Amino acid sequence: MSQEETCKGPTRSELRCGQVLDAAAECFKQSGFHGTSMARISEAAGMSVGHIYHFFSGKEAIIEALVARKTEHTLEIFKTFEEEEDIFQGLLNRVDTGLGECTDCDLVPLDLEVVAEAARNPDIAKIVQGASAKVSERMTHVLRMLHQSRGQEPALCPEATTQVLKALFEGMGQRIVQNPDMDRKEVAKAMRVAIRALLEA
Amino acid sequence: MSQEETCKGPTRSELRCGQVLDAAAECFKQSGFHGTSMARISEAAGMSVGHIYHFFSGKEAIIEALVARKTEHTLEIFKTFEEEEDIFQGLLNRVDTGLGECTDCDLVPLDLEVVAEAARNPDIAKIVQGASAKVSERMTHVLRMLHQSRGQEPALCPEATTQVLKALFEGMGQRIVQNPDMDRKEVAKAMRVAIRALLEA
Repeated sequence: MSQEETCKGPTRSELRCGQVLDAAAECFKQSGFHGTSMARISEAAGMSVGHIYHFFSGKEAIIEALVARKTEHTLEIFKTFEEEEDIFQGLLNRVDTGLGECTDCDLVPLDLEVVAEAARNPDIAKIVQGASAKVSERMTHVLRMLHQSRGQEPALCPEATTQVLKALFEGMGQRIVQNPDMDRKEVAKAMRVAIRALLEA
Repeated sequence: MSQEETCKGPTRSELRCGQVLDAAAECFKQSGFHGTSMARISEAAGMSVGHIYHFFSGKEAIIEALVARKTEHTLEIFKTFEEEEDIFQGLLNRVDTGLGECTDCDLVPLDLEVVAEAARNPDIAKIVQGASAKVSERMTHVLRMLHQSRGQEPALCPEATTQVLKALFEGMGQRIVQNPDMDRKEVAKAMRVAIRALLEA
């Protein structure tokens, strides 16, 4: 790729795609996957249904792209852990930010809608399982790097630790819906105690 | 009309109520809250729509009764912790059973559907928040009993520990959808490490 090409911003197509994804995310969040029609997404995106079908074959393809976008973001975060000089401290230092992201009222409804739909729709299940496998693999890799850097022989299987860490943060999304007044500062403190124990085990 | 008023009375009424709840739970699980009509619940319960309206004012009242039924079950479990001679060991001993319940594929889809709906529907949010407050209060009480029995001055606020414990188990419901092949035995082992640290902090 030439210098000129790499310096280019997103293409017109990419911008249009992003516009559809943002509009669809908002619709799914407000009305759920089943309560949202392609016509509604078209209206919200300010784009014809035909134009949307040019990018996405349907609602499931839109969910797939939304999940992929989130997965990319999460993998970027894990990359920063791998570059930390002190992975242990890096992981603990990010608990507050991670908790903030997992309990962001703008993001939680869509996350919950996607996983609730996955629980009954095998096509959506396949999408979230693929994304989860990628993220889990990366997290497990970070844990192995941590153990290696500390010359530690872990008592816990890193794959299992990964699942517990993910459950902890994903579960916080459910918590904030059920307990919006939750004291985030105190909760982050308790999370650090649990996470420290998992990383040191 | 409150749940108590509608379900009080002759056993026949209670049975009929339970029949509606079981049918509705199955419908919500399969098609979601919005994808389920009262007509569909009526068909699944083998009861006329009019008859169902005799017990429940609508779908939201049915969700309320389903949440209340689950809350009763959870409070019963906490009662057993309070009666344990060794609360600490009692809590740790129940991790495997708790994980099994939270990842039961018959129950997870409804749990996720209810919380996803609560994230966008203030009436359902109010229901789950009320139920969550009852359960959290009881869990926090168990933690206070534990600290007292061990003459322990906890470094963590028991309310925050409760939220982390609940997130851990609720998050496992999301995990099993995204990672159905998760090694439950290894995960339970890692959960015990995290929970032990939280209880001893």
